Amino acid sequence: MPLIFDYTNLLTGAVGEKAGLSEAEIGKLDGTEEKIIREAEAKWLPFRELPYRDEYAKSVSDLARECAGRFSTLVNLGIGGSSLGGNALVSALAGPQGNHQKVSVFFPENVDPDSFSRLLDSLDLEKTIFSVVSKSGSTAETTAQFLVVRDLLISRFGPGGYRERVVAITDPKKGDLRRLAEEDRLRTLPFPDGVGGRFSVLCPAGLFPAAMAGIDINEVLAGAREMDKRCRVSDLFQNPALLFAILLYLSNHKGRGMVVFWPYSDLLIPAADWFRQLWAESLGKRNSVDGAVVHAGQTPIRAVGVTDQHSQLQLYIEGPRDKVICFLAVNDYRTVVEIPDAGIKIPSFSYLQGKTLNSLIRAEQEATEMSLTKAGRPNCKLVFPRLAAIHLGEYFYLLEVATAFAGTLFQIDPFDQPGVEEGKKLTFGMMGREGYEDKLKEFTEWRKRPGKIV
Amino acid sequence: MPLIFDYTNLLTGAVGEKAGLSEAEIGKLDGTEEKIIREAEAKWLPFRELPYRDEYAKSVSDLARECAGRFSTLVNLGIGGSSLGGNALVSALAGPQGNHQKVSVFFPENVDPDSFSRLLDSLDLEKTIFSVVSKSGSTAETTAQFLVVRDLLISRFGPGGYRERVVAITDPKKGDLRRLAEEDRLRTLPFPDGVGGRFSVLCPAGLFPAAMAGIDINEVLAGAREMDKRCRVSDLFQNPALLFAILLYLSNHKGRGMVVFWPYSDLLIPAADWFRQLWAESLGKRNSVDGAVVHAGQTPIRAVGVTDQHSQLQLYIEGPRDKVICFLAVNDYRTVVEIPDAGIKIPSFSYLQGKTLNSLIRAEQEATEMSLTKAGRPNCKLVFPRLAAIHLGEYFYLLEVATAFAGTLFQIDPFDQPGVEEGKKLTFGMMGREGYEDKLKEFTEWRKRPGKIV
Repeated sequence: MPLIFDYTNLLTGAVGEKAGLSEAEIGKLDGTEEKIIREAEAKWLPFRELPYRDEYAKSVSDLARECAGRFSTLVNLGIGGSSLGGNALVSALAGPQGNHQKVSVFFPENVDPDSFSRLLDSLDLEKTIFSVVSKSGSTAETTAQFLVVRDLLISRFGPGGYRERVVAITDPKKGDLRRLAEEDRLRTLPFPDGVGGRFSVLCPAGLFPAAMAGIDINEVLAGAREMDKRCRVSDLFQNPALLFAILLYLSNHKGRGMVVFWPYSDLLIPAADWFRQLWAESLGKRNSVDGAVVHAGQTPIRAVGVTDQHSQLQLYIEGPRDKVICFLAVNDYRTVVEIPDAGIKIPSFSYLQGKTLNSLIRAEQEATEMSLTKAGRPNCKLVFPRLAAIHLGEYFYLLEVATAFAGTLFQIDPFDQPGVEEGKKLTFGMMGREGYEDKLKEFTEWRKRPGKIV
Repeated sequence: MPLIFDYTNLLTGAVGEKAGLSEAEIGKLDGTEEKIIREAEAKWLPFRELPYRDEYAKSVSDLARECAGRFSTLVNLGIGGSSLGGNALVSALAGPQGNHQKVSVFFPENVDPDSFSRLLDSLDLEKTIFSVVSKSGSTAETTAQFLVVRDLLISRFGPGGYRERVVAITDPKKGDLRRLAEEDRLRTLPFPDGVGGRFSVLCPAGLFPAAMAGIDINEVLAGAREMDKRCRVSDLFQNPALLFAILLYLSNHKGRGMVVFWPYSDLLIPAADWFRQLWAESLGKRNSVDGAVVHAGQTPIRAVGVTDQHSQLQLYIEGPRDKVICFLAVNDYRTVVEIPDAGIKIPSFSYLQGKTLNSLIRAEQEATEMSLTKAGRPNCKLVFPRLAAIHLGEYFYLLEVATAFAGTLFQIDPFDQPGVEEGKKLTFGMMGREGYEDKLKEFTEWRKRPGKIV
């Protein structure tokens, strides 16, 4: 059974005329499907080729096999798209319950001195390998982390031992990390040209940490290829990516400026965080492709089931009608946890005895879905038959293609991120990088304005 | 130096006429401050007494001292308000860099069979103690977790060994957990009557795990008392809770239906998650106190700095003008991490050499703040002089009081959560609890409706 997209509770039949979408409304886009698919495909979309690039899977697997024999821990130095995809794979598929757990993988991302030093202090450096991941090779957070680690490894193991303990994943030809990797004679894997960070999970950036954790990356790619077939169908109601894009676009258009991704599995939390970047950074744009000021975008929120029933559900059910919810449901968890029958006669305990945590979490997901629907709150779900590599491949690819389609619907460019450049330049200026002296000056001036505090 | 609330960048002077709030607009509420304070205080607000309840601190400290001598791990079985406050304290203040780390504390919350069994499998049960926390004593997730753990402990250690390894925190007089604790002769701490879960961090529910982790809970309470003084001042511009409540209320009123809490410290992530429950569940209400249908509320979102600069910042800067941002900034982190000078001449590396991660994370916070402000995106910040117990006490109390004040402004009851009852009943029905047969029937009928999937 494949990954399923269930959109029953987005429709008027489930949540009512006002809150729901009618099939007629959705069908209005009938005939434009071909256009959306063609437009998205007419742009050069290198990410769509990744499931077919066997040479990446091969070089990743070869290097991972070599490293996993020798090291028990991988620390992935990378941020945003250089971390989220790998983390999603490792969290969902590796770990003690997996069959192939080989190496523990950490994804620190942040340059928080407290958490980063705590992680470094906890490592057995002898048995640890680091991947340093940056497409451009100039990401400040990643280069800073790497300088700290590089010094640590050289002072402990000498240049040779350092070289053995680092793999660089960066542009195959250009960039400052590529240059340093060559000077230091590090092993490298390619971060392919034209593949943006948030669309990179199926390239070595996402596949290497997965392979190190013992995940069958070929199965992940096979899942993506299966989904690719489904996403090329021009009948809207048979194409999950097109349907997902259109339903969320219409919801946003009707005032639902937030989409809540709500996994009922702790292991899928990073998969939801991965989507959160994809949807936010791709669609959150000031300008349309025609140059008009549109301030487009829909804010993705990550919740956790059942946990957030005790935190956010009250707001989702009774608060403003400004969000649409997408559950990530799991049919078969990896483990079954029995709730033993201890013969307790107290009402809040007795009914649970002899059941399982599995039936409880499933009942809670369905109860939440039903009570949201009855309250007229539109929701949908992606159903994972189980937490398997093939379904993660389907999941990533479905949402990447849906995001590209949504870019066409929102009439923005889903592949750039112009809004974050200013902050990067200001940081360079404040950190004293050559060529950014004007930015430091600008900041120094700005900071002089009178503050209001209490 | 105390915790500071800096609201400079919410004002017209910083973000412009259209996006900002003018002091006149804020001052319109002038004269009503007394009313808001009086109204909030006229209601019985037991949480406001907690900083002064020395007897709780004493009984918590006594029990924690006894247990921490014998156990190295505490697992807190509780969800929502029975977990978030303790987790926020432990994350911010305990850990390897703290002075007093005694016991590692885990807050599983979820009934995910995969993550819960993984946690149980990783424990050295001999050295582990469990707290089971539920005010009502009937929380399905907590009773289910506890039944699993209870059986594990009894079968391993016998009834006596089980009793030594559990502390129950629940209503002092009533409820099913109180009943079981008495039957099983467990040690207990009180979850005081009238204190809702989300306002419970300063009662034993939050203080016990903190004390077990070696945190000075008296300092936490002292911070809350300091903030209490500041929150009783009737001059709006001198009262941080009133100002926070009014500024967010006005922002929401002007179309900013989201508030992003954005800590620049991984250790403050749970503190932001704690606020996320407080703000969502307190203000997200269908009905006003007068019974009108209002669907009030503002959606709290937790981001992480610097990490989410590579995920959400593009949307926050260029997307819809529908959010207000609140940074959690830290002046002095616990650790200083130097970026060594290795003499690398490559531009993306050389400027960072000889600096610290501390200066980098700080520069990035300020750069993000400045670029948001220049883009006309309102933002404010809570500044922690350092990650110290006193400031966490100030933080919790400020936001709890602000939430109570916001309840008055939104004209809703911030202390109930009627919207989640239906889902709880449905879950009871589906799990076969006596008396909920009609809910099971309702669900079974509902589930028969035709589904739309792809």
